Amino acid sequence: MTQHSTSTRPEELLAQMTLEEKIGQVVGFWEKEDGEAVAPLQGAFAEVSGLDAFARHGLGHLTRPYGTRPVDPDERAAWLWRFQRRLVEETRLGIPALVHEECLTGLSAWKAATFPTPVAWGASFDPALVEEMGALIGGSMRALGIHQGLAPVLDVVRDPRWGRVEECIAEDPYLVGSVGASYVRGLQSAGVHATLKHFVGYSASQAGRNFAPVHVGPRELADVLLVPFEMALLDGGARSVMHAYTEIDGVPVASDPTLLTGVLRERWGFDGTVVADYFGVAFLHLLHHVAGDLGEAAGLALAAGVDIELPTGDAFTGPLARAIRDGRVDEALLDRAVLRALRQKDELGLLDARFDCAPPTSVDLDTPAHRDVARRLAEESVVLVSNDGTLPLGDRGEVPGRVAVIGPNADSVDALFGCYSFVNHVLEQHPDVPRGLVAPTLLDALRAELAGSEVVGVPGCAVDDDDRSGFAGAVAAASGADVAVVVVGDKAGLFGRGTSGEGCDRDDLELPGVQRELVEAVLGTGTPVVLVLVTGRPYAVGWALERCAAVVQAFFPGEEGGGAVAGVLSGRVNPSGHLPVSLPRPAGAQPYSYLHPALGAGDEVSNLATVPAAPFGHGLSYTTFAYDDLVVVPESPTGCPLDVSVRVTNTGDRAGADVVQLYGHDVVASVTRPVAQLLGFARVDLGPGESVTVTLSVPPARLAFSDRALRRVVEPGDLELWCGSSADRVVEARTTLVGVVHAVTPADPRSTTVTLAAPVLDDA
Amino acid sequence: MTQHSTSTRPEELLAQMTLEEKIGQVVGFWEKEDGEAVAPLQGAFAEVSGLDAFARHGLGHLTRPYGTRPVDPDERAAWLWRFQRRLVEETRLGIPALVHEECLTGLSAWKAATFPTPVAWGASFDPALVEEMGALIGGSMRALGIHQGLAPVLDVVRDPRWGRVEECIAEDPYLVGSVGASYVRGLQSAGVHATLKHFVGYSASQAGRNFAPVHVGPRELADVLLVPFEMALLDGGARSVMHAYTEIDGVPVASDPTLLTGVLRERWGFDGTVVADYFGVAFLHLLHHVAGDLGEAAGLALAAGVDIELPTGDAFTGPLARAIRDGRVDEALLDRAVLRALRQKDELGLLDARFDCAPPTSVDLDTPAHRDVARRLAEESVVLVSNDGTLPLGDRGEVPGRVAVIGPNADSVDALFGCYSFVNHVLEQHPDVPRGLVAPTLLDALRAELAGSEVVGVPGCAVDDDDRSGFAGAVAAASGADVAVVVVGDKAGLFGRGTSGEGCDRDDLELPGVQRELVEAVLGTGTPVVLVLVTGRPYAVGWALERCAAVVQAFFPGEEGGGAVAGVLSGRVNPSGHLPVSLPRPAGAQPYSYLHPALGAGDEVSNLATVPAAPFGHGLSYTTFAYDDLVVVPESPTGCPLDVSVRVTNTGDRAGADVVQLYGHDVVASVTRPVAQLLGFARVDLGPGESVTVTLSVPPARLAFSDRALRRVVEPGDLELWCGSSADRVVEARTTLVGVVHAVTPADPRSTTVTLAAPVLDDA
Repeated sequence: MTQHSTSTRPEELLAQMTLEEKIGQVVGFWEKEDGEAVAPLQGAFAEVSGLDAFARHGLGHLTRPYGTRPVDPDERAAWLWRFQRRLVEETRLGIPALVHEECLTGLSAWKAATFPTPVAWGASFDPALVEEMGALIGGSMRALGIHQGLAPVLDVVRDPRWGRVEECIAEDPYLVGSVGASYVRGLQSAGVHATLKHFVGYSASQAGRNFAPVHVGPRELADVLLVPFEMALLDGGARSVMHAYTEIDGVPVASDPTLLTGVLRERWGFDGTVVADYFGVAFLHLLHHVAGDLGEAAGLALAAGVDIELPTGDAFTGPLARAIRDGRVDEALLDRAVLRALRQKDELGLLDARFDCAPPTSVDLDTPAHRDVARRLAEESVVLVSNDGTLPLGDRGEVPGRVAVIGPNADSVDALFGCYSFVNHVLEQHPDVPRGLVAPTLLDALRAELAGSEVVGVPGCAVDDDDRSGFAGAVAAASGADVAVVVVGDKAGLFGRGTSGEGCDRDDLELPGVQRELVEAVLGTGTPVVLVLVTGRPYAVGWALERCAAVVQAFFPGEEGGGAVAGVLSGRVNPSGHLPVSLPRPAGAQPYSYLHPALGAGDEVSNLATVPAAPFGHGLSYTTFAYDDLVVVPESPTGCPLDVSVRVTNTGDRAGADVVQLYGHDVVASVTRPVAQLLGFARVDLGPGESVTVTLSVPPARLAFSDRALRRVVEPGDLELWCGSSADRVVEARTTLVGVVHAVTPADPRSTTVTLAAPVLDDA
Repeated sequence: MTQHSTSTRPEELLAQMTLEEKIGQVVGFWEKEDGEAVAPLQGAFAEVSGLDAFARHGLGHLTRPYGTRPVDPDERAAWLWRFQRRLVEETRLGIPALVHEECLTGLSAWKAATFPTPVAWGASFDPALVEEMGALIGGSMRALGIHQGLAPVLDVVRDPRWGRVEECIAEDPYLVGSVGASYVRGLQSAGVHATLKHFVGYSASQAGRNFAPVHVGPRELADVLLVPFEMALLDGGARSVMHAYTEIDGVPVASDPTLLTGVLRERWGFDGTVVADYFGVAFLHLLHHVAGDLGEAAGLALAAGVDIELPTGDAFTGPLARAIRDGRVDEALLDRAVLRALRQKDELGLLDARFDCAPPTSVDLDTPAHRDVARRLAEESVVLVSNDGTLPLGDRGEVPGRVAVIGPNADSVDALFGCYSFVNHVLEQHPDVPRGLVAPTLLDALRAELAGSEVVGVPGCAVDDDDRSGFAGAVAAASGADVAVVVVGDKAGLFGRGTSGEGCDRDDLELPGVQRELVEAVLGTGTPVVLVLVTGRPYAVGWALERCAAVVQAFFPGEEGGGAVAGVLSGRVNPSGHLPVSLPRPAGAQPYSYLHPALGAGDEVSNLATVPAAPFGHGLSYTTFAYDDLVVVPESPTGCPLDVSVRVTNTGDRAGADVVQLYGHDVVASVTRPVAQLLGFARVDLGPGESVTVTLSVPPARLAFSDRALRRVVEPGDLELWCGSSADRVVEARTTLVGVVHAVTPADPRSTTVTLAAPVLDDA
């Protein structure tokens, strides 16, 4: 990894700084907002003094100036330029603040484009398109004077009950890493630093409860949870990392030097900044109780490797200053953080910025280019899970006469968006403010799509209460229709204000509220039911797969999502999304991951088989694909990488896109290995009857794992390989890897490749 | 720990042995049985050749000669003596076999006493009574020529969905260790070796699925899961240990030298034998896929520290012999195991046994002494969870006129027993064989107990199907009664043949089948409902606590259990059991443990609060108890142990027993610590108005935990202490521990106690 900052300005500045000026550079400032919290326990923190007083010795980060209330972007930009100018002119060292914002599904600001949620990116299996999206998001941010975005989320889905699954990309670490690294490249191509979060372990919290303890050992951590971060740093070049709130095996990550310094900097060579998750430093004292006061918390966090306290300085301010003056915390730890903060500003050109140009005006945050990417990504992410031929509705011109569109998510704009969208993150607390963007609901879009049909909309019930009074109307509508499209799922929200999102966890994976009963009531009419799930997580819908004419899974698909789903239903769009998370069969029996070893799911030794209702990677099309000629390309002299080719043929009569997936299984290994693991994938567009041979190149790191001694190795032995359009085995092959032991640390005497004709680990 | 075997006979014998004779000593032999399996995947293993051929070079273990079919104990003993005599006379070295049996709830043999299941032992909080039980069980076994019992189970309950929770003692490791060590002392006092199982981690399997991967880190392993094993070895002197089937963080325990040798022998000084769980060595190849064949599996297991393959030699026989001859396994590993096996036989007096005396006759396995202990333990284990005054039914002579006794577990003998009872383990596969022991059902016992009442019994439904046809009869019976006793819960069985037991896991913690609906139907009559839960695990019955007049929790209470529960209902027995596992509130939201850190259960950061419906340790009485004068006894010069005294007063008008519980919370520590942890307990009997001051001595090991460097330490700082009859805080105190760092390994330079006036870890 290259050292990004080569100027000596940071060191020179540090040398001049008072303690207060140093502290100023490692804290954020967040204006207190009215309304409900958008960060955990936000209300527990006293309002800090005004920005002017807070920033009089300089300011590290300005926290979310656009994102926590509905403010006109142009007006806010003008304010921001003035504020930066004052920092330049009125503080002793004249350093502007780094401005950060949330940008998970697009810049989280009023009137900004809102893209599909990350689990939909995973469903697209299209890193290149996600990179395009990242570049557009970054462009919007840079135009508004924002330097850092708090995305992407690289937590690997481990328990679908967790509310933040919608913010994650997939349950496979390589899919998360591939798509996540693309997002990083896109965002950073616009000059905005990405922030990888939540480093690390958050998604494995006990029982899927937000913040709950994480029970994992070092091997699972290394082989599953750390992988996407490594990819996004080493392949994606991400410049910032946010620590996770959680503890792992008793150690809060924000206080863990083995992760924040050992893994991140010493093993991976990361030289950017580590920022705190909001209030995370104070939580070491207040929630984790590993620090007796805020000063001790600050010292622990700095020693571990946290550089910047966000959203506002609570511990890194007075408490840290006192702890340093009392000799309880070494000032050198603060200096280290300050230097990293200044280097980041230097990289961003902030040390020379004067803000003497005019602020931007008429910034359009939702251009046709945004709309186009939002539409394409939404269309690629819709998964056709099952279909008895009822879909597409408008197939070959036989448009149904009457369509009943039922369910709480059919005619809801909010249902299209995830919890970190501006609509659901902020506007839900400002009911009188217009949304600021045009997003047709699924019902709107379907009416437009099925112009020749009579389309009747009936909500039936809400997402999450027990009011069944609308069932009768739904049943009546369905009874008189040729087909019933029932649209159920989640409502995204924060801290219990929804069924999906931060702090909105589930006890089990039944559909929330009485939605399953609504679907069953409509099924009772005998009218064919097309079930559309608009959710933030997978639900246990095995029952629906058996009884509905078709099931379509959309993960909060964004501002163009209504049209994308309607296009799939009508047949204008041939679906090509694939499940980035398994659809579970039992509503309980969590956690589950498709990456389980042999004893993780079957029924040999337990009455409970947790075989999913639909496997990881599954997705149908209106055409069909066949696979043959799976070939392991003869090994190069070094055997690295492993190339596998397969021929895919569109065997149907319409054009379509397939996601060719390569999986592998290490037959015998020194530790237990997953029964299936994604090794590569490629999206291919094929006309009717067309064939293509796809060659997937497997980097050795994907075959590597942590052996008994926690060395990362590729072991000799047989490897089963198969291709298909899901994790199920369609065409198979087998190859044998010749013995390799390759350790991760170059200093390790075993790091020499001991044989050649095999893949070796491509070390950091 | 003392070296138990000092004779040189084992070494002398080993020196004479051929490879076949060595192998003979480290394998068991299990005659193939007809009928369904009593061990996982039993059917997958080919029938081995007859015993005579198998044992011609000697035999290590004879597996379960009494326990896997209904055979008269006297007849079987005669057979056994003849068999042993033949081993003595017809094999070259004349070594008898070690005979082992299951004995979890009493010797698992026809006509033998069946005691309450282990989770009921936990509910009694009475290690001394469990020790009495152990001595009786051991006496029966020794009389029949059995040398080793495959109990106790020391797995700490981590997920109540797991089917084997009934075999575990509690969710607190010190309660498990205290009661478990007592069982060991009792059994071994009769000359029968105890086997600690399942070493280690099994109870933490993913989603509570039997055999599923265990996701824990080294700290949780050390501070929770290993603790009871350490106590039962170091305090209880157990002579054998069985490995767990599961893997921990990718490493199957049966192949893990760090646990089976490093922890067990090097850290704890254990010098007994490690036996395989049935087929566990072969499973390294067949299920875990960490060995390419059975010979490799044998080598891995031997190298890790498994000494004896059970139930029959599958891997340690031909496959091991070939691997040794091929040079793939070092014969020294086999020699090490043989020596341990021979030393164990030497300790048991087996090397000199000639079996030339007459076999036992007229052995009574269910004497009045057995009955008395079974009754007392059952009575002490029944937990009165809630009571609005409806109980006791016969209070002050006002016996109800008519009592409806409803529910599938009301009139079932089998419902009194756990899955390792002979009745549910074996006899269920032999429906024509009489049970061989007299056990009145709860209905029988209640009829006897309430002689003045009209008692009507109606099943209402089965434990686990969806037949509601009996509801009408149940409702009719309840409607005409003064009180309805509804008895629901589990049916113990093996491998899916029940709702609790080995291989009988649950997706969630709703009562199985339609039992909740039955209770709600009876509640609908308006007749007061006394809900009696006869289960193997805790269920989510918060709804019942709110709506029933009283709730009584019995964990499979054994052959005297019907009378014990009836006695509690009538008031003849004043209940004194306390919950050894929390009663959960949500049916999902698992895993959960009361030992959670601050962020493990509350609702600050998740919409899901998992606060239990009834806390760990909870249990009511027909009298009341008050606590005051909680005092930390002034520290001794070494501060070790920490003594805490509290006064308990029986403030009611009848005699009763309370379980005084002391809990602690380390206020600030270097790692996260549980919000509550049991530090001590004592059972006290108090007459009306009587007071007693109880002093609980807390060994420092109970305050110790694994610090950041995984050293086991007692850290300086404040400790909150409280007493009560549950984990809820009743009377509180606070003490301050002065700094101590004490490492576990004597070689560690930090193992010197650095200050004195505080508890230090009592190292192994």
